[in-house]
Amino acid sequence: QGREGGRLSSSGELFVLTYGALVAQLCKDYEKDEDVNTCLDRMGYGIGVRLIDDFLARSAVKKCRSYSETADMIAQVAFKMYLGVTPTVSCSSAAGNEFSLILDKNPLVDFVEELPAERASLCYCNLLCGVIRGALEMVHLPAEVTFLQDRLKGDAVTEIGITFLRKAEDRNGLVTTT
Amino acid sequence: QGREGGRLSSSGELFVLTYGALVAQLCKDYEKDEDVNTCLDRMGYGIGVRLIDDFLARSAVKKCRSYSETADMIAQVAFKMYLGVTPTVSCSSAAGNEFSLILDKNPLVDFVEELPAERASLCYCNLLCGVIRGALEMVHLPAEVTFLQDRLKGDAVTEIGITFLRKAEDRNGLVTTT
Repeated sequence: QGREGGRLSSSGELFVLTYGALVAQLCKDYEKDEDVNTCLDRMGYGIGVRLIDDFLARSAVKKCRSYSETADMIAQVAFKMYLGVTPTVSCSSAAGNEFSLILDKNPLVDFVEELPAERASLCYCNLLCGVIRGALEMVHLPAEVTFLQDRLKGDAVTEIGITFLRKAEDRNGLVTTT
Repeated sequence: QGREGGRLSSSGELFVLTYGALVAQLCKDYEKDEDVNTCLDRMGYGIGVRLIDDFLARSAVKKCRSYSETADMIAQVAFKMYLGVTPTVSCSSAAGNEFSLILDKNPLVDFVEELPAERASLCYCNLLCGVIRGALEMVHLPAEVTFLQDRLKGDAVTEIGITFLRKAEDRNGLVTTT
């Protein structure tokens, strides 16, 4: 796959390698994969809380009218903007509040061959879940965000699940523009 | 200063915030600033060792004929490529092996107001020194790379010093293209 197919811009390589250094440090710090995953999610949350302003300013997005529109926005605008890839979105619940972002290519793992055997439960990219969760919370959309599949663990694709926690009827004011 | 004046591309904001999370984690891990600085430098070294291939492939640079050309290459091509800024280069030794990269604007600290009082000796961006050192070593140019001034510490500019460790007469094969 060439530069156009999901590679980050040049500054991206430095980002991807720096992210790898962060994960490696956390693996040194915490013996349990679960603790590394929690820490990455927590860090991501803090980043998402700050990144949302940048996102709204750059994207000048309109207010989303549904969870479905919000999920599309995350995939088509936010992922494209920050990671250079556009996941496929699918709705996975009749209630209309559960979505999957499916990544054929995940630039964050460009330099990762595979997870070491002793780190089989590591969610290497868990920072992304936290980023999404933090950013959504800042626009009053509390959500659970987790990896459902991960190519690093041998799955066919990488899949991030987003479950919006409020009922669909209460879904006013989803994303506000600045 | 606007987007053009040294701001990273959109993926850069995520990088800068992730870098901040890395530094914060290391500050949790190590009590002494010196240990954090050493760790950042060591991580950066590992990144530089890997990033150099990407740099040579992307930039298709010609072989540098002097330390001076090499320093210019780092400032004008590498910094521009990976951080979106172009430091000023000055030669600071009669021997011709010491250079300074002077940054008016350092995008890596975009979200940092100031260092906490108890972290007065922290070289927040020390990863960059390690990256430069690692990359240079891979093209057979061992060097010492350190922060000489830092706006985060109240200096007027941020200045990275590069001292090439081999004598200028031995300076063949500085940068090879792929």
